[in-house]
Amino acid sequence: MTQAKNDRFLRALLKQEVDRTPVWIMRQAGRYLPEYREIRQQAGSFMGLCTNPELACEVTLQPLRRFDLDAAILFSDILTIPDAMGLGLHFVEGEGPKFERAIARPADVAALPRLDPTDDLAYVMEAISLIRRELNGRVPLIGFSGSPWTLATYMVEGGSSKNFGRVKAMMYSDPKSTHALLQKLADSVTDYLNAQIAAGAQALQIFDSWGGVLSHDTFGQYSLQYLKRIIASLRPGPDGETVPVILFCKGCNGHLEAIAATGCHGVGVDWTLSLADARARVGDRVAIQGNLDPSVLLATPEVIRAQAAATLDSYGAGTGHVFNLGHGITPDVNPDHLAALIDAVAEISPRYH
Amino acid sequence: MTQAKNDRFLRALLKQEVDRTPVWIMRQAGRYLPEYREIRQQAGSFMGLCTNPELACEVTLQPLRRFDLDAAILFSDILTIPDAMGLGLHFVEGEGPKFERAIARPADVAALPRLDPTDDLAYVMEAISLIRRELNGRVPLIGFSGSPWTLATYMVEGGSSKNFGRVKAMMYSDPKSTHALLQKLADSVTDYLNAQIAAGAQALQIFDSWGGVLSHDTFGQYSLQYLKRIIASLRPGPDGETVPVILFCKGCNGHLEAIAATGCHGVGVDWTLSLADARARVGDRVAIQGNLDPSVLLATPEVIRAQAAATLDSYGAGTGHVFNLGHGITPDVNPDHLAALIDAVAEISPRYH
Repeated sequence: MTQAKNDRFLRALLKQEVDRTPVWIMRQAGRYLPEYREIRQQAGSFMGLCTNPELACEVTLQPLRRFDLDAAILFSDILTIPDAMGLGLHFVEGEGPKFERAIARPADVAALPRLDPTDDLAYVMEAISLIRRELNGRVPLIGFSGSPWTLATYMVEGGSSKNFGRVKAMMYSDPKSTHALLQKLADSVTDYLNAQIAAGAQALQIFDSWGGVLSHDTFGQYSLQYLKRIIASLRPGPDGETVPVILFCKGCNGHLEAIAATGCHGVGVDWTLSLADARARVGDRVAIQGNLDPSVLLATPEVIRAQAAATLDSYGAGTGHVFNLGHGITPDVNPDHLAALIDAVAEISPRYH
Repeated sequence: MTQAKNDRFLRALLKQEVDRTPVWIMRQAGRYLPEYREIRQQAGSFMGLCTNPELACEVTLQPLRRFDLDAAILFSDILTIPDAMGLGLHFVEGEGPKFERAIARPADVAALPRLDPTDDLAYVMEAISLIRRELNGRVPLIGFSGSPWTLATYMVEGGSSKNFGRVKAMMYSDPKSTHALLQKLADSVTDYLNAQIAAGAQALQIFDSWGGVLSHDTFGQYSLQYLKRIIASLRPGPDGETVPVILFCKGCNGHLEAIAATGCHGVGVDWTLSLADARARVGDRVAIQGNLDPSVLLATPEVIRAQAAATLDSYGAGTGHVFNLGHGITPDVNPDHLAALIDAVAEISPRYH
């Protein structure tokens, strides 16, 4: 396959010199784009869009036609794994994801099948191949997965949750079944990410969207140790190249040092921590991705530019910064405002390299 | 008025020696209690309950009849201030609080009246007097308020929010109006808390429930500086005694040192930080309140006891710990499980004093 012509994103993650700070945006293919909303309408349902490789490829490429982004990210959902395990994923308008069959008893954990992602999630691998072909080396393609803990929360709660009472009651009352579930998920996530690499993913991001709801003494045991195992089992790319891994653990800034020590190449941080502090804490071990508050994009282009400048300045000189928001872009953002951000990063960042 | 016979809670906040670790529970008067649900039904609506001093007094006292708690907390809501300012608070089942009139323009900020809490929120002061009379010195009574920033989020968003886009767009685009709003709220919160002290509140808690959504460089300016000003303007109690103030800034553990330096007497922390770490960071400046994960109460009494022991042990020896959950108790908790927690704290904690 063609290597990336613009490899700024991969180089920054590997802490190699770059000419300017690379930028991509979480949920860059999403509802804030009218052309996305059109395809989403055509697909009929969100999962209809995820499971159709041609449409998933099309929406993956949409933001790259508008903005000078340094990476593409596979359009998919973190819940494809539990869906493929037979839990019956569907999306209820305004309520988010729901599973027809939640995990309620130890027997439910035992009954979960081991996935063969190449087969069970073939539509994801086809989308990756297609996107790589269409990108033709313009920018690298990021694959992704949810973390075992984050997937477990949805599977036990039966969908989104406010207090995570069910999954935490299971964790506190039945650690054995909880670890059995997490280990099964870790095996499937490992195979899934390795299959994504084989299909053409050039970098990976693991989303631990709900690691932040765990206590200081359970985060390591119930989330981080599985992330470590997964990262240790990932294979290099088809030409033996390193496939860098970014860990994005939402609301986990208190655990930043431990996250940076998992073997990942980059850590995602949100806007509640300055990049200067984050950098001081992780040192030279890993690259840092982030961290503009997505709500800044609701302000004027002048404010957006000033905030982009402040974010770049907070990281400071040298490689290792991947510019991004601290969370996904929201549907109410005007795409022209995102253009102002991308332009500001391109224009201001060369002075730091 | 009668001084508290059990002053363990006040003494711990002032870092004076105690015989055992005091305990109270956020939302201890709440939906997990069948007797609360009965009164709530009678009142017709949540605000009907808050605005009726006799009923508010009754539900405040309910948990004290069941459990050996070291403090009572006024039953009320943080949104009484914007309601009294004329925004029209109401609660929609399953959707949380809503305002009929949200703050949308600078003119809306200018039009907000300065409250006279003794008059405009007389029902709160009557409830406090009544509760003090009924408590008859058994335990101290805690009054409370929302923080200016937290109140502003509800007032600008028109209710609860997911991304806080409106209030943040206002903050980033129009800092002047945002500060005008926050200053008005800080004045009203100050007057409100001083009126609560005059009516009989013996300690205060300020909830910055949404400080955690602010960025590292806006939290100080848009939330903490107003909290500092409020605390500096609070008066002593009727007999010249110190009325200790607890700041509970949800999701703000990254700012713990700054929060401890506001002049408050205690800081609330959630379960994502160990009490040992929290104590190491704030030193002897302030007491620490917290921090059991409320979901532990969904596990067995044995697990609850073990987790209570671990929490006490994490704080370690000496005064300055107020045992609490790291967030409000959830409606799905069995009251017997809370009894197991309260008993465990009473039984285990003397060895640390």
